[in-house]
Amino acid sequence: MAQVLYDFTAEPGNNELSVKEGETITITNQSIGGGWVEAQNSRGEVGLVPEDYIEVSYIVSVDVKTPTPSLGNVAASDLSFFDAYAPASTPAQNQVMHSCNAGSVSLLQATNGNDPWSAWNADSSGGSTNNWASNPEGTQTGKSAPDPWPPVSHGHPQAYQGPGAEDDEWDDEWDDMKSTGGYAESEAGESGALQRGGSHATSMKISLNKFPGFSKSGPELYLLCKQLVKGKDRLPIYMGEVGPVWSYPETQLDCVVADPKKGSKMYGLKSYIEYQVTPSTTNRPVNHRYKHFDWLYERLLEKFGSAIPIPSLPDKQVTGRFEEEFIKMRMERLQGWMTRMCRHPVISSSEVFQLFVTYKDEKDWKMGKRKAEKDETVGVMVFSTMEPEAPDLDLIEVEQKCEQFSRFTKSMDDGVKEILTVGHEHWKRCTGPLPKEYQRIGKAFQNLSSVFTSSGYQGESALTDAMTAAGKTYEEIAQLVAEQPRKDLHHVMETNNEYKGLLGCFPDTIGVHKAAIDKVKEGDKLVAASKITQQDKVTMAKRASTMSYALQAEMNHFHSNRIYDYNRVMQLYLEEQVKFYETIAEKLRQAHSQFTTM
Amino acid sequence: MAQVLYDFTAEPGNNELSVKEGETITITNQSIGGGWVEAQNSRGEVGLVPEDYIEVSYIVSVDVKTPTPSLGNVAASDLSFFDAYAPASTPAQNQVMHSCNAGSVSLLQATNGNDPWSAWNADSSGGSTNNWASNPEGTQTGKSAPDPWPPVSHGHPQAYQGPGAEDDEWDDEWDDMKSTGGYAESEAGESGALQRGGSHATSMKISLNKFPGFSKSGPELYLLCKQLVKGKDRLPIYMGEVGPVWSYPETQLDCVVADPKKGSKMYGLKSYIEYQVTPSTTNRPVNHRYKHFDWLYERLLEKFGSAIPIPSLPDKQVTGRFEEEFIKMRMERLQGWMTRMCRHPVISSSEVFQLFVTYKDEKDWKMGKRKAEKDETVGVMVFSTMEPEAPDLDLIEVEQKCEQFSRFTKSMDDGVKEILTVGHEHWKRCTGPLPKEYQRIGKAFQNLSSVFTSSGYQGESALTDAMTAAGKTYEEIAQLVAEQPRKDLHHVMETNNEYKGLLGCFPDTIGVHKAAIDKVKEGDKLVAASKITQQDKVTMAKRASTMSYALQAEMNHFHSNRIYDYNRVMQLYLEEQVKFYETIAEKLRQAHSQFTTM
Repeated sequence: MAQVLYDFTAEPGNNELSVKEGETITITNQSIGGGWVEAQNSRGEVGLVPEDYIEVSYIVSVDVKTPTPSLGNVAASDLSFFDAYAPASTPAQNQVMHSCNAGSVSLLQATNGNDPWSAWNADSSGGSTNNWASNPEGTQTGKSAPDPWPPVSHGHPQAYQGPGAEDDEWDDEWDDMKSTGGYAESEAGESGALQRGGSHATSMKISLNKFPGFSKSGPELYLLCKQLVKGKDRLPIYMGEVGPVWSYPETQLDCVVADPKKGSKMYGLKSYIEYQVTPSTTNRPVNHRYKHFDWLYERLLEKFGSAIPIPSLPDKQVTGRFEEEFIKMRMERLQGWMTRMCRHPVISSSEVFQLFVTYKDEKDWKMGKRKAEKDETVGVMVFSTMEPEAPDLDLIEVEQKCEQFSRFTKSMDDGVKEILTVGHEHWKRCTGPLPKEYQRIGKAFQNLSSVFTSSGYQGESALTDAMTAAGKTYEEIAQLVAEQPRKDLHHVMETNNEYKGLLGCFPDTIGVHKAAIDKVKEGDKLVAASKITQQDKVTMAKRASTMSYALQAEMNHFHSNRIYDYNRVMQLYLEEQVKFYETIAEKLRQAHSQFTTM
Repeated sequence: MAQVLYDFTAEPGNNELSVKEGETITITNQSIGGGWVEAQNSRGEVGLVPEDYIEVSYIVSVDVKTPTPSLGNVAASDLSFFDAYAPASTPAQNQVMHSCNAGSVSLLQATNGNDPWSAWNADSSGGSTNNWASNPEGTQTGKSAPDPWPPVSHGHPQAYQGPGAEDDEWDDEWDDMKSTGGYAESEAGESGALQRGGSHATSMKISLNKFPGFSKSGPELYLLCKQLVKGKDRLPIYMGEVGPVWSYPETQLDCVVADPKKGSKMYGLKSYIEYQVTPSTTNRPVNHRYKHFDWLYERLLEKFGSAIPIPSLPDKQVTGRFEEEFIKMRMERLQGWMTRMCRHPVISSSEVFQLFVTYKDEKDWKMGKRKAEKDETVGVMVFSTMEPEAPDLDLIEVEQKCEQFSRFTKSMDDGVKEILTVGHEHWKRCTGPLPKEYQRIGKAFQNLSSVFTSSGYQGESALTDAMTAAGKTYEEIAQLVAEQPRKDLHHVMETNNEYKGLLGCFPDTIGVHKAAIDKVKEGDKLVAASKITQQDKVTMAKRASTMSYALQAEMNHFHSNRIYDYNRVMQLYLEEQVKFYETIAEKLRQAHSQFTTM
């Protein structure tokens, strides 16, 4: 049994069921997936209903989605270090490893259910407070309209939830791709099976998601691979004033996401929103649907995720998909996401990102897509393209840096979530009880004033006119209070929400580094057991150093952006707050001036 | 069984029982009175506990006292009109009536339990909303400290509750008086029994209070009395610009209530607070205990209550009687009460009031007290001293005026209570959840800032110093928000609370007028039945006109004071509100200036 929270009108031909707010329905199949459940109404009609629109018996919060563990683009078999070097390991596995074909990588995202930090918590949780375990925002009445700032949950509601997880619409173009037929086979070459795994990743992932125990492959792919990538993919790391830094372009790429347009296909049965993306370099707009952003996100995650936290895209909420407010909000967040990607020197200059923002025509786009999906330098192999222009670091230093970043990102995650929790509560108060109270104060003054007017006593209007004006002023203040959060708190929330998403990627990124450090530490043991050569051990240490430079460069990029972002949002917030209080003071001053001095 | 809400420490030798907050005790005798109950603790000890300190089983609110119906100084027998004129009426009753000896009067206060308006509700409730029947503030957690603004109740928590109702301390001086012996008898003269009733009124009232059905005596005492009071007690009513007005003195009396001092007696067993009252006329301070104020209140109520609403004194709360905060609050309210009395030309010039503020010594005070208690021109007889200098009004006009004031005071009572309810809620929010939220916002900013400080990234302090300052600013704002109600809302609440008390007296005052009008309307019938003469009928009409002039003079006094009071309190409130918002804006402007432009 479930309670319907919001009206939902079925789209014709989609096997959906129209329901009304307050209606009680019976859930007949909860495992439909994609954000839908099958339900039966009191008239016996059965159909699909968005699960966000209903509240099942005593479940407290419906806005917070339980994150589905995401595996990124994963390998079909577990290539753990000792397995790979064990005598029993298959020749195929060894071949894959040593030829550095890494069409499939794990981003560790599924290691521990909902808590991406837990994998390395034991090492780093130290004395820091862990608000992971406490969620003061537990209760929420199901009756209110969808909240732009749902309470902070233990997991990552924003974390990537796999393509097609919520909306079957997103699948269709992949089906189109399959129908081009034979492509993967025809160009698969020697790396065969795994290559196919790569190119058909999106349809594979869904089924792989169903193996909860699926474990990660380690950084040894990179640490021990024989040859490194050369040529135009090279990613130099320089020593800047703050330490290791990426190579920054002279002018920063910028993109404007604008002009959302509703399109449709399949004779109007399916509709979608198309956004115009205009890069500052060409100033020529290209069109992209949400699923194209999603495709880009996946490519970036696959290619750079081991070295660079790739924040997830804004939620693919079913709720109000075509409502103006929602489209505006999604566009604002897609803009935020694009801006962040543009600001990153490695991402913005990557071939796949450039394709996304500057493709010339449909053919160009399709060609580029195929090429990007065939990219072999993904996962930990991205480190093979990195070239620090500095002496190698010893392992102790590498480890210290890693620990430091791990502690920092964990603490910042706590701090950001505290702000989101407090901000969410403040938002609720400012848009709910507080303006209601000011309104009641305003009404009470006006009511008393109108009683006074009825006295028949002469000279009454000197008081009553002013008192009525004062009452109206408090009604205006109510309005100001209710509208203010959209002007200031909104930006604080958006920025912190973005950072929550970014910080949620660090456990994976840092996890790759920790795993690499562990492998290097085992070096002597492995040499003694003749599992690796002395040269392999030296190579591993050198590559761990390269990984550390990459991590430091990324952290320095993160810090510099963070300082800029928080500086900006705090200033914006305080500016708007000052204006807010000044406006109220001025309104009250005017109200006061209407009273006559006696 | 009862739950102890606050710690209470027994005073030695007073048969009291010390109890701790949270303790469960068994009530062994609830009918102790005087605000005490007898209780037994878990160790079997029995003693007296203040009933305000405990909460019995599921009683929701302990702060709001159920008002004990007050009878003022009442007659021992019911002198209703027809009884008085019925053949069976005793000679004694007739004698009292016709000789205008009115040592005892009813002020109608006990006619209908808790609702003083209900007696005339049917006539005037018309289309106006009656918030008498709805109390949105029903629930209150018993755990919070005593609230200066308990929710508005249906009755009058502030209404006079009879002397000695809460504290046996108040009785002792009356005992002293009794011990002077024989006085009442010796000076009683011809009006005998009823006179004694008057002079011993205070001890009588307590037992009379126990007769819930005790009914009022009507205004016929005045309407039909044979001779009117002459001489210095004469109260002229003039025609002013606004209509009938009292005779106002050239300079208005003013009194300062100050310098509360703790005194004690009975070898320190009993202690009390003495206030210094300094009138502007003599500028010579006199000392008064609360019970002296109470005595004055009773005299004024007895003498003027039929014509002039006499607001009750501030509550005689047991809770925190010797706490500084409470003493300050009571003094502020006694000051407010005295100021209102001083402002009233009839009251301030009365002999009893002048005695209170200007008595020379103990003997003077005692003599004056006895004289005041013997005053026969009390109750409706006060109208016999009033002399309107204007032509008589016809009954229709008298009735219209009465209805108009009745409607107005009822509507204003609703409006005032709405402000009190809304203000009380606002007070709770401003001193509770709101500052807590600002504090949490401040802490969240500071916490994130201290995480940032730990980054080790250079140039961090440009952000973190400013962010910490912003966080501290929000903590300061929390403080400002929590303190603000005492600076502004407090005055709005005090003024409206005073008016609630005043308005609560009008049903009685207006009830006397309505009863008089009814009697005059019956004039022809009574003449026809030979119960009164034609001359009596003419006299009654003329006296009803006098009463109407008195009511109009009083309403004009009320209106003029009301306009002044609300003008002043609204200005004060808005002034403080402007300062409040300006202070916050300025603090935020400073916080903003600490951020560096990037």
